[in-house]
Amino acid sequence: MTEFRYKRIVQFAETDAAGIVHFSWYLRYMEEAEHAMWRSAGLSVAPAGSTIGFPRVAASVEFHAPLRFEDEIETLVRVETLGRRSIKYSYTITRGDTKIATGTMTAVCVRTHPAPMQAIDLPEEIASKLR
Amino acid sequence: MTEFRYKRIVQFAETDAAGIVHFSWYLRYMEEAEHAMWRSAGLSVAPAGSTIGFPRVAASVEFHAPLRFEDEIETLVRVETLGRRSIKYSYTITRGDTKIATGTMTAVCVRTHPAPMQAIDLPEEIASKLR
Amino acid sequence: MTEFRYKRIVQFAETDAAGIVHFSWYLRYMEEAEHAMWRSAGLSVAPAGSTIGFPRVAASVEFHAPLRFEDEIETLVRVETLGRRSIKYSYTITRGDTKIATGTMTAVCVRTHPAPMQAIDLPEEIASKLR
Amino acid sequence: MTEFRYKRIVQFAETDAAGIVHFSWYLRYMEEAEHAMWRSAGLSVAPAGSTIGFPRVAASVEFHAPLRFEDEIETLVRVETLGRRSIKYSYTITRGDTKIATGTMTAVCVRTHPAPMQAIDLPEEIASKLR
Repeated sequence: MTEFRYKRIVQFAETDAAGIVHFSWYLRYMEEAEHAMWRSAGLSVAPAGSTIGFPRVAASVEFHAPLRFEDEIETLVRVETLGRRSIKYSYTITRGDTKIATGTMTAVCVRTHPAPMQAIDLPEEIASKLR
Repeated sequence: MTEFRYKRIVQFAETDAAGIVHFSWYLRYMEEAEHAMWRSAGLSVAPAGSTIGFPRVAASVEFHAPLRFEDEIETLVRVETLGRRSIKYSYTITRGDTKIATGTMTAVCVRTHPAPMQAIDLPEEIASKLR
Repeated sequence: MTEFRYKRIVQFAETDAAGIVHFSWYLRYMEEAEHAMWRSAGLSVAPAGSTIGFPRVAASVEFHAPLRFEDEIETLVRVETLGRRSIKYSYTITRGDTKIATGTMTAVCVRTHPAPMQAIDLPEEIASKLR
Repeated sequence: MTEFRYKRIVQFAETDAAGIVHFSWYLRYMEEAEHAMWRSAGLSVAPAGSTIGFPRVAASVEFHAPLRFEDEIETLVRVETLGRRSIKYSYTITRGDTKIATGTMTAVCVRTHPAPMQAIDLPEEIASKLR
């Protein structure tokens, strides 16, 4: 299955008054890596004019060590399961040799127009590139 | 002209490693107050299915005093100028008797669909309620 | 165990280009409700000058239905487990009769100064108020 | 005076329900470029353990064109004025040949500990590297 490594530096706006990155940002780091993986496969999760989307149905994170301003991190994202209508990803965030966080997210493929959203099969041209 | 007072508490995710609210949040506090003012006038800046929008063309803020977690703030928002195709707002954020920030923003009325965005006259039913 | 209901309106800055609230915001909605519960118990997770903190060690969310701009939501937060050094919360976000999301988070009690952070027992004056 | 160019891609979490980047993010793009400029000069605005900081006293932005998911942008940041106790920056955000936004921010140098914050002269080792 596809996997991808994505480097990033911690920005000041991502820290909180405890002096560390606010935990809600970890989900964004994970998403950024995932979208970069799609681009590296020649894909976009949301190309202009698209009528399909990939909303999350579940997310989980375990936080192992805090992050601080200007820390250099790497997120490893992997496609764990490619279902008929869903994709499950796993993520590992590290800073050098230190494991910072691990997580998973599951997204479903939906038709966004016309409303309401409705689950559809993952298009084969996407599935084949993520395999 | 319409004016509105909006109360709010500072959330932890809005602070940064300097122990104070990150300056980018002030624009969101200002926008929240502005949207609450629209609601109080029986309006929404983005009702479901609408094909008009109000993107910003300019914003400015002066920061007078820092904010901390759980500070209780009030934002006073005023319609300063109601132009044919634009609205200029002013904002004053206070915590008790302390002036925290002052700012202005200008939004233009646009037709969002079909693309591309194009400036249009402010609908009279909106203008009359903001006056 | 303590539980608390917290009402909130969806702000525009919380939506994304899919027209719905970005999933990372759900963790912030959950945290806002949790901090409001602390305040209702006469507590703060981060009083000025405090040298203890409550970093997250785990978070999980299931997303049942999307949220849109100006949706009125209620978050029910509950203390599920009060451990010697940790607190596990559960959260249910609803919009009227519609279940929007459910989640859990676990925080540990740490001494933040002097560095590095170190896990400590939950102070009894906090534990007794959260029971 | 020092200037710096900083490249960046628009992330999905930065867009809003109008399909474009929420205006509050422009201030963060500007700050990211500024902090990258400090790093390129061998500096950090907030090194670990530092007791000086650079809170903003003013910010302004003009928005010329919208940004969308995965747009590649470049921010040019310049030190416009290096005062005894303050720094004024200017910023220009472009996407290819399209001017997206222009802005300015002024930060003051403060001693953060012991509280309260107090304005101090810009340390010469910082001033000399930003010149």
